[in-house]
Amino acid sequence: VKARHRRPHRDLGFAKVDLDRQDRCGQAEVIFGSGKTPAQIAAIATELHRNGQPVLITRATRQAATAVRRKIKSIRWHEQARILSTRPAPVTHSFRIGVCAAGTSDLPVAEEAALTAEFYGNPVERIYDVGVAGIDRLLAHREQLSTLSVVVVVAGMEGALPSVVAGLVSCPILAVPTSVGYGTSYQGITPLLAMMTSCGSGVSVVNIDNGFGAGFAAARITAALARAARSRSA
Amino acid sequence: VKARHRRPHRDLGFAKVDLDRQDRCGQAEVIFGSGKTPAQIAAIATELHRNGQPVLITRATRQAATAVRRKIKSIRWHEQARILSTRPAPVTHSFRIGVCAAGTSDLPVAEEAALTAEFYGNPVERIYDVGVAGIDRLLAHREQLSTLSVVVVVAGMEGALPSVVAGLVSCPILAVPTSVGYGTSYQGITPLLAMMTSCGSGVSVVNIDNGFGAGFAAARITAALARAARSRSA
Amino acid sequence: VKARHRRPHRDLGFAKVDLDRQDRCGQAEVIFGSGKTPAQIAAIATELHRNGQPVLITRATRQAATAVRRKIKSIRWHEQARILSTRPAPVTHSFRIGVCAAGTSDLPVAEEAALTAEFYGNPVERIYDVGVAGIDRLLAHREQLSTLSVVVVVAGMEGALPSVVAGLVSCPILAVPTSVGYGTSYQGITPLLAMMTSCGSGVSVVNIDNGFGAGFAAARITAALARAARSRSA
Amino acid sequence: VKARHRRPHRDLGFAKVDLDRQDRCGQAEVIFGSGKTPAQIAAIATELHRNGQPVLITRATRQAATAVRRKIKSIRWHEQARILSTRPAPVTHSFRIGVCAAGTSDLPVAEEAALTAEFYGNPVERIYDVGVAGIDRLLAHREQLSTLSVVVVVAGMEGALPSVVAGLVSCPILAVPTSVGYGTSYQGITPLLAMMTSCGSGVSVVNIDNGFGAGFAAARITAALARAARSRSA
Amino acid sequence: VKARHRRPHRDLGFAKVDLDRQDRCGQAEVIFGSGKTPAQIAAIATELHRNGQPVLITRATRQAATAVRRKIKSIRWHEQARILSTRPAPVTHSFRIGVCAAGTSDLPVAEEAALTAEFYGNPVERIYDVGVAGIDRLLAHREQLSTLSVVVVVAGMEGALPSVVAGLVSCPILAVPTSVGYGTSYQGITPLLAMMTSCGSGVSVVNIDNGFGAGFAAARITAALARAARSRSA
Amino acid sequence: VKARHRRPHRDLGFAKVDLDRQDRCGQAEVIFGSGKTPAQIAAIATELHRNGQPVLITRATRQAATAVRRKIKSIRWHEQARILSTRPAPVTHSFRIGVCAAGTSDLPVAEEAALTAEFYGNPVERIYDVGVAGIDRLLAHREQLSTLSVVVVVAGMEGALPSVVAGLVSCPILAVPTSVGYGTSYQGITPLLAMMTSCGSGVSVVNIDNGFGAGFAAARITAALARAARSRSA
Amino acid sequence: VKARHRRPHRDLGFAKVDLDRQDRCGQAEVIFGSGKTPAQIAAIATELHRNGQPVLITRATRQAATAVRRKIKSIRWHEQARILSTRPAPVTHSFRIGVCAAGTSDLPVAEEAALTAEFYGNPVERIYDVGVAGIDRLLAHREQLSTLSVVVVVAGMEGALPSVVAGLVSCPILAVPTSVGYGTSYQGITPLLAMMTSCGSGVSVVNIDNGFGAGFAAARITAALARAARSRSA
Amino acid sequence: VKARHRRPHRDLGFAKVDLDRQDRCGQAEVIFGSGKTPAQIAAIATELHRNGQPVLITRATRQAATAVRRKIKSIRWHEQARILSTRPAPVTHSFRIGVCAAGTSDLPVAEEAALTAEFYGNPVERIYDVGVAGIDRLLAHREQLSTLSVVVVVAGMEGALPSVVAGLVSCPILAVPTSVGYGTSYQGITPLLAMMTSCGSGVSVVNIDNGFGAGFAAARITAALARAARSRSA
Repeated sequence: VKARHRRPHRDLGFAKVDLDRQDRCGQAEVIFGSGKTPAQIAAIATELHRNGQPVLITRATRQAATAVRRKIKSIRWHEQARILSTRPAPVTHSFRIGVCAAGTSDLPVAEEAALTAEFYGNPVERIYDVGVAGIDRLLAHREQLSTLSVVVVVAGMEGALPSVVAGLVSCPILAVPTSVGYGTSYQGITPLLAMMTSCGSGVSVVNIDNGFGAGFAAARITAALARAARSRSA
Repeated sequence: VKARHRRPHRDLGFAKVDLDRQDRCGQAEVIFGSGKTPAQIAAIATELHRNGQPVLITRATRQAATAVRRKIKSIRWHEQARILSTRPAPVTHSFRIGVCAAGTSDLPVAEEAALTAEFYGNPVERIYDVGVAGIDRLLAHREQLSTLSVVVVVAGMEGALPSVVAGLVSCPILAVPTSVGYGTSYQGITPLLAMMTSCGSGVSVVNIDNGFGAGFAAARITAALARAARSRSA
Repeated sequence: VKARHRRPHRDLGFAKVDLDRQDRCGQAEVIFGSGKTPAQIAAIATELHRNGQPVLITRATRQAATAVRRKIKSIRWHEQARILSTRPAPVTHSFRIGVCAAGTSDLPVAEEAALTAEFYGNPVERIYDVGVAGIDRLLAHREQLSTLSVVVVVAGMEGALPSVVAGLVSCPILAVPTSVGYGTSYQGITPLLAMMTSCGSGVSVVNIDNGFGAGFAAARITAALARAARSRSA
Repeated sequence: VKARHRRPHRDLGFAKVDLDRQDRCGQAEVIFGSGKTPAQIAAIATELHRNGQPVLITRATRQAATAVRRKIKSIRWHEQARILSTRPAPVTHSFRIGVCAAGTSDLPVAEEAALTAEFYGNPVERIYDVGVAGIDRLLAHREQLSTLSVVVVVAGMEGALPSVVAGLVSCPILAVPTSVGYGTSYQGITPLLAMMTSCGSGVSVVNIDNGFGAGFAAARITAALARAARSRSA
Repeated sequence: VKARHRRPHRDLGFAKVDLDRQDRCGQAEVIFGSGKTPAQIAAIATELHRNGQPVLITRATRQAATAVRRKIKSIRWHEQARILSTRPAPVTHSFRIGVCAAGTSDLPVAEEAALTAEFYGNPVERIYDVGVAGIDRLLAHREQLSTLSVVVVVAGMEGALPSVVAGLVSCPILAVPTSVGYGTSYQGITPLLAMMTSCGSGVSVVNIDNGFGAGFAAARITAALARAARSRSA
Repeated sequence: VKARHRRPHRDLGFAKVDLDRQDRCGQAEVIFGSGKTPAQIAAIATELHRNGQPVLITRATRQAATAVRRKIKSIRWHEQARILSTRPAPVTHSFRIGVCAAGTSDLPVAEEAALTAEFYGNPVERIYDVGVAGIDRLLAHREQLSTLSVVVVVAGMEGALPSVVAGLVSCPILAVPTSVGYGTSYQGITPLLAMMTSCGSGVSVVNIDNGFGAGFAAARITAALARAARSRSA
Repeated sequence: VKARHRRPHRDLGFAKVDLDRQDRCGQAEVIFGSGKTPAQIAAIATELHRNGQPVLITRATRQAATAVRRKIKSIRWHEQARILSTRPAPVTHSFRIGVCAAGTSDLPVAEEAALTAEFYGNPVERIYDVGVAGIDRLLAHREQLSTLSVVVVVAGMEGALPSVVAGLVSCPILAVPTSVGYGTSYQGITPLLAMMTSCGSGVSVVNIDNGFGAGFAAARITAALARAARSRSA
Repeated sequence: VKARHRRPHRDLGFAKVDLDRQDRCGQAEVIFGSGKTPAQIAAIATELHRNGQPVLITRATRQAATAVRRKIKSIRWHEQARILSTRPAPVTHSFRIGVCAAGTSDLPVAEEAALTAEFYGNPVERIYDVGVAGIDRLLAHREQLSTLSVVVVVAGMEGALPSVVAGLVSCPILAVPTSVGYGTSYQGITPLLAMMTSCGSGVSVVNIDNGFGAGFAAARITAALARAARSRSA
């Protein structure tokens, strides 16, 4: 209880910034860019950067990127993934995270997941355009898939892809429905519900388009794996 | 216009019975059992039978079966499929209809489709328990699938099965979502929307649990194929 | 299994292009333009064209059209249907596909279906502005309808049109709900559900606004009819 | 303002009964049976009957019927329509109300509409089993339809029937969606939305299964017609 | 049957124009502007105008107005109601249509209803800003309401207004939900369902924002009243 | 922080019982009966009773009532409201809570609210069967309403009743949608959304059928009023 | 009844303005800016201002602000909250209203609530960025929360915040779901339903983004508290 | 590819049973009891048992339990969790799985998760009745939570519980919405969407009531942790 009180948040009025989340939880605080003004984003980012924290901003518009880069020269703008990030943590373990995407239009979300995982120091393998309508394209990666520690599966128009992948591997699967598609895809709720419904065991799901959430959850798993490997090998 | 007037419907008050649909359209009238009382069903069935029409009753409850069999001794009750039917038409062509089902609980609907297709004189092949979560079970039927003229795909918990099948064959695919499943399957609307959304080309969809509709539509296609084969070979 | 390995997809990073789909399945790969950048579309189209494949691009914006025509001079831009296509396959059989549209605002989707069917070498008949609110306009085409091999029915504000047509013909019907309309049409889900629900036998449904899907499925049926006719006449 | 105070409601604690609604509005108060106990229904009915009011009870269960008939011997129980009513008002005008029903399973709601219209003294014509999937069955009634003053159209599986009827007549159309059907009919919301969406002019819609509401609204129109005819002929 | 054939529609390719609807049904054809290009609208309008038909265009954008006025000088543009119309029919009867609107933002739809009713030769009374949250504003019109022949009630944020009005009058009520409002009004589906659900007798409902539909249906009723008055007074 | 630790919950394995909620918050813990077995309910109730706490059980089935009364002789079973409660707290202030109900079938929920308010020591006034379709029945209570401190408005078929009431008073209004009704009432979501949407100021809403929640929230307000009156009069 | 007639609304054609609402109800009329043109807003505001009424305009766009400030120099534009208001009423009591907001993007709605409460003369305490994902940030305000008279809780991505707060205080809680968030937040319906569903006692909910409604309802409660305090202290 | 062919499924007609899934994937095949007849379940279970596989049956009714126990004497029936299972695998590692449940009525689903995890050889800690409305009950487990390797959070009425837990730990969180609750909980879709929407990082979600899925996914993670610990310590 006491320890908690030693870590006050910095209060910017519109936001309370957590300056030692990385030490406390092992994963630095992340700025969710949507719904904040470029000025607010830049202020929070600067506060984190000044305190020696790594900075990851998701859903960053071009305007936000401009505002932040004026303050933090070294930050990098990944346009397709709408991510701003300082240098990723170094890779310190060998538990690889796979990111599968069903179609070309799922790439922005897939890249958000991949870059998030890399930001937290994970090796990532990208397996793109492997939708189930041409199942052979996915099966060609069967062996590669079986060597991964976690697989993030991103799909907007075919909610069963995670189930198919789950049948090919024995590691945890994180599914991300995307809002691409038209008509009955309903901005992602159809693949979301389909991912929930289909029978694949070992699959759990994050919010529509939430590439960050999947990358973050995958990184929590690999961090635990790394800890397990280290603790016993000691 | 005149011809139309020569074919009056028999009016039973609660229903107008079409007595020459088979001659006119090539496919006899079918009784949709749901929402009708056993007495109403028996009256319509008797009217058709007395006029030399074959009889097919879908969504028939046990009560309806009892009421009808009291009038038409020769009719057969397929309990799982909830179908009552007189002897199927003889098979007169070689265009086979496949019926795939994802899971055991999809069988009632799959059987409704298969029996309907057989009622109209088609050879049918059943390929059951081939859900995508264990993709190898489906792939084991790859060669068999490629020899079919139409494939009906029945699935309640995995809307992408029709797409996967569509990628393996070049014939038309008719997809039937079923209301099995729980939680987010929402009595079939999730697989229905997922079937609509997924990228498989050549797939079209019928109503939830509408095994009859798929079997009937498949039979329309094979009937056309048989006509095409006959007309040119003449 | 071996044969499969001889047909590698060309991997462009963001997409794997299928270069012998036409030989393998009888229908060339199609580019779904939505969710891809003009540059991505142009790259895939060029790859296909360079390998002697016909090119069909759906949901093509004006920007995509400009980008593609810079690379493939001979491609044609159908603005209303949002389609880019190289020369259609020659018509080699006599199985005609009808395309009915309920109202003027359904024409973009109806044209997408019609042009897709023509791209695959089918003769097409267009029957437009035949909504059920003025049933005589449809009935005037009664005889014409009975000569078609497949009918695609496109409607946004009246989901029962496919059922009415189904009652007038004995061939397969493919229904396409459209997102035109306002208020309770809900971008097409109302006609979609109504098409599913109504009693017309022989009707199956594709995704909202999916003119391509209906045209493609219709072409699969006529291709089978042509094969049936050829095989027996041999 | 004063006049209002001369018409107190009789307060039964759980309900305030309006004893001069017929004099005031021309249409007697009606008891909506659903959600009330048989005892409550019987108490309200007795109160109305004792004050010389005609009695109409909708959604009456068998239990309610038993309870009410114990108090009011002369009341009649229409089981299919779930209606209890005392003798209908005598027919005093010639404006006929038509009631069309798409299928056999729509009859309970259609009868609720027809009996309500008759209760208020209207001549009614029943036109049943005229779904659009066999359009000729409806067209056979074309002439009859054109002589009606109002048409109530009841349909659960084909929301476009009111539009088709609207195209054949020039009188007002009242549409009643029903909750029969399965799968995507969604207990009537699909036909409700389809009735709203389709282009038929002159159509307005009442709640799902609300046969009473349609019969009542139709009776308001014919009552106005009768007044118009009388007032001018004076 | 013959008579029907004497009235061919003029076929413009994208639309079949009905040139004698007014003679046949008593109400001229109306152009629904939404989903049509300005050029298409102008072409249909010109065709009607040239054949001596009155012209009413709903959902007309400014672009459509410009295009039409270039062809038909005398047409008038009602911006708030998005209506283009030639001179209304002269008022030939005394059955008044009331149009009530709950709030200021419901006025565009209310005006669409009022102008439509006037186009067909009806006297109209507008009663605006009478939402139920300040019930006295409505009650101040109690006497006026009781003299009307039909009441159109337009409301986006309070679905019970039609019910309240229905309790104050004995004529038919046509309710129009509007898409104004925010949050849980859901573009009009909330007032639509609330209008359906609430207990007011004699109320029927048209599509969201369908002021035209309500005005047209009201005009059908007053036309019948006028016929009734004339026929008997003869 | 310390004080918190002095108040441990009693842990029954399946539930942690809060034994000094009344002292801490001024309102005793309440048992939500739904989803618990009669044995579980009886165990929790006995635990509270043994510790001198008053007992209120909502959503209590007859089975639960039997089980509890076996343990706590003095508890009373309010069947219509599905409530079990020990003696209410004595009334110690004069701030009255009104409970309005639109129709007879809303009474179970209205009584749940009224009995809850009484359990916490409040004087309650019941105003039942005052739906807006007969607005005069409500207006007859205008003066009475203006003397209340809080009004709970319970309605299943007319979401605007709270708004109408809000226009007649200046105290806080708590609205409770109920799941009575049929068709488009959708088990209460229609009145819930309509209550949210309508313009009445000072209205807030609780869950469907949540009479308890409204009664509890009303009691929080009157408790504050009583405190305010006491504190200043000191 | 008479008194009512002495307070006529000023009728501007498109709106009836209530000029003595403050005297009658204790709370001045408020202009809901959405759906009205800048000119309409300015006309209503001027009418109120000219009659000595305070002016509060919600959902005011920049255009509306410009139009109004041209007429009423002293009015102030709160851009983030989209509010225009004349000088707030002076604070005359000590019942404080708390406004909690879960995240930075909820601030526009939170400020709408806070400014509304201040407009009606209430002291307000703002507690921002206290989402439940970092529960310690909220718990740090535990003591402060327990001193408030009403708490407004604003949250778009976490519907349980009001319940958590309700467990920490014994005063009434008004919850406001906001439309921020993405994917499954569905423009606020997810937090709305979650707020309804969660078990917190004493919580009631207003419409999505309806900061004004919550501030207004809170002000009704504190006004009653102030009256209670005054009346007894007299 | 070859290895795959050595493992044929046993085909029972209605199901293909996977007899070496445990060897292949490390987790034995599980029988989903819902939608299968007791006879079908018993047949599959016997097939697995005869081949030396452990047996786990979820959603098992009492009828199924009777049928299976007739064949497999040693199987155990967990009534509350609706699970039938043979002896769990022995615990061979120290990575503990926590199962939190918000309320008493969530226990059946929580137990399904806990028993599944135990079946696969995991130590499990149950933390029940820790809903957020009384946050101190959860906070009392803060230290215990921080020692777990995975946390399964089960909640039906408060979708934010997983987020609160996620803020207290740094391990992966698996959230399970349940269908308990009433009104706006909508059989679990409200907590499902709320869990998706809320900001907690490291949370992913499985289907409504899918305790098995969460237990299985948790077991996949701890199995990987155990492998990681073993592999490095070697």
